[in-house]
Amino acid sequence: MCYHNANRKNGVRFMEGGAEKVIVALDAMGGDNAPQEVVKGGVMALEESKDIYLKVCGTEEAVRRELAQYTYDESRLEVVGCTEVIATDEHPVNAIRKKKDSSLVVCMNMVRKGEADALVTAGNSGAVLAGGQIVVGRLKGVERTPFSPLIPTTKGMSLLLDAGANVDAKPSWLVQFAKMGSIYMENIVGVKNPRVGLVNIGAEEEKGNQLVKETMPLLKECKNINFIGSVEARDIPFGAADVIVCDAFVGNVILKMYEGVGGALFSEIKTGLMSSLRSKIGGLLIKPALKQTVKKFSTEEFGGAPLLGCKGLVVKTHGSSKSKEIKNSILQCVQFKQQGISEKIQANLKEEEA
Amino acid sequence: MCYHNANRKNGVRFMEGGAEKVIVALDAMGGDNAPQEVVKGGVMALEESKDIYLKVCGTEEAVRRELAQYTYDESRLEVVGCTEVIATDEHPVNAIRKKKDSSLVVCMNMVRKGEADALVTAGNSGAVLAGGQIVVGRLKGVERTPFSPLIPTTKGMSLLLDAGANVDAKPSWLVQFAKMGSIYMENIVGVKNPRVGLVNIGAEEEKGNQLVKETMPLLKECKNINFIGSVEARDIPFGAADVIVCDAFVGNVILKMYEGVGGALFSEIKTGLMSSLRSKIGGLLIKPALKQTVKKFSTEEFGGAPLLGCKGLVVKTHGSSKSKEIKNSILQCVQFKQQGISEKIQANLKEEEA
Repeated sequence: MCYHNANRKNGVRFMEGGAEKVIVALDAMGGDNAPQEVVKGGVMALEESKDIYLKVCGTEEAVRRELAQYTYDESRLEVVGCTEVIATDEHPVNAIRKKKDSSLVVCMNMVRKGEADALVTAGNSGAVLAGGQIVVGRLKGVERTPFSPLIPTTKGMSLLLDAGANVDAKPSWLVQFAKMGSIYMENIVGVKNPRVGLVNIGAEEEKGNQLVKETMPLLKECKNINFIGSVEARDIPFGAADVIVCDAFVGNVILKMYEGVGGALFSEIKTGLMSSLRSKIGGLLIKPALKQTVKKFSTEEFGGAPLLGCKGLVVKTHGSSKSKEIKNSILQCVQFKQQGISEKIQANLKEEEA
Repeated sequence: MCYHNANRKNGVRFMEGGAEKVIVALDAMGGDNAPQEVVKGGVMALEESKDIYLKVCGTEEAVRRELAQYTYDESRLEVVGCTEVIATDEHPVNAIRKKKDSSLVVCMNMVRKGEADALVTAGNSGAVLAGGQIVVGRLKGVERTPFSPLIPTTKGMSLLLDAGANVDAKPSWLVQFAKMGSIYMENIVGVKNPRVGLVNIGAEEEKGNQLVKETMPLLKECKNINFIGSVEARDIPFGAADVIVCDAFVGNVILKMYEGVGGALFSEIKTGLMSSLRSKIGGLLIKPALKQTVKKFSTEEFGGAPLLGCKGLVVKTHGSSKSKEIKNSILQCVQFKQQGISEKIQANLKEEEA
């Protein structure tokens, strides 16, 4: 098949034969393993899905050097050269404002202008969160764009939002998080009528801080979501709700306690297994099974996390992402686009207004 | 030795021979395993330390029936009869207000009046937190009394405060938590110059919510504590600080994520070990070592947690406490009293005022 005579219209590239491509802007310079693993992940995604058109953004020489190592469908990849890079430790807002020709800001501008449907980056988290709202911009009616990672549970996975930067949240933001999260879980993850829980410090009606107490009645009244009430942190890893709603400070603590407790426990288990000959032998035998469990219960397993409610899709993957995670994050964009998540969010918010 | 002719004065019972006893009020009716395990734990504590005088509070018949099973030093134990019991699921504040003759409220009143130095209970958490402030009362100058459990880390343990009920905290409360926590860790746990960290969502200066941003400069100026700045949740299980300061909502989430992630992970590991014959055999071999690790990394391992800053000591142990945890919680009171923690807190708060 040949895609050379493609025409772009509203961020959708119509190919010969009527196939509609999802245009993904890939920040080739973001993350610990850029540009090598990022570019490799991009090539892998192209290989895996014919629905993708990739705009690989980075310093031209670096990107072309990486691309030279692979064979890929050149009709579905273009290099967008830029001159700057935002480092992981740079001040997020300053970086976004000053480095207009950085790979991240260039990608964001492409999404904003409709020249791309989505952007995938493993770069500076703070800059992605800030830029999502400042550069890409919010869908009409969206108050804040929550960073929404999938977290592992004993039942599968839940969506945690907000785990981003919207601290000191207002009740109305949390209500929107509940709606957007429900749409994502239903359409992308495939959970029917997802249960929405509000993070709280007890199940009783009168428990909670000011934010929770004010948000609770609003969520109860909310149509179009399946609100199940308070969820205690203890029950989150057991899958107590599909959509976990909280302000970003609490969400960040939840996300990082997953990493922290998980990491510390496995380090202790390893030490424990070295304590006797018996446990050493046992340790060798269980290694594959244990490795599988570690993998299953890692927050890194689910690829990138979206910043919901942006004009277009912004996906942030871990800074340490390897090609596989980059690839998965790109493939995720196809589903997001094809399921019309942004349109559904927009429609849902309007409906409630009416 | 005979303690029969003991005289009480300011909560200290001077025994024949000049020995000074620590009077502990034990809520025999609180917790899932009351009164059996609670009374048993009390008897064990009496056996282990000659410094303890126990006032066992509960419905007289129930307490005496349990006591009848043991031999113990009767000169150091008295039964304080009461007629009511606060259940685990009762509304905390209502229960405290209405059930004046409940074992918990009677114990609290003994501490308030100086008839006991400390109280140990496995009862209704909310009632303990509320009653600590309402019934027992705060030391002069103390704004809030944080619930302060020890949490396990790969380096040993840290003190988390507040994990209680003081949500929507003020910066000045957090500063006092830092001071009280430092005194506790130095004098009870024996950590010299304990490192104090403020829970935050990033290490950068400008990160955090309003509360954190306002508290940060106050903690920096604070004398008498070893403030090390922001601590991210991810690093807490690795022992990033000895004293972990946060408002109660966040503290509660941290504490319960320990339980939740730990519990979920072990459940996943168990399932994983059943996946093949190889891992089943390995699982049998590592069972003792794994059990040891589970135990080491459980928040239940450290016995009761104090409500710091009360007039007298209030220790809350887990609702599921067995006799060993009750015993350890009672023994902890001796150290608290002998180290003069309340006096040190009082002195430290005054010093800063001056």
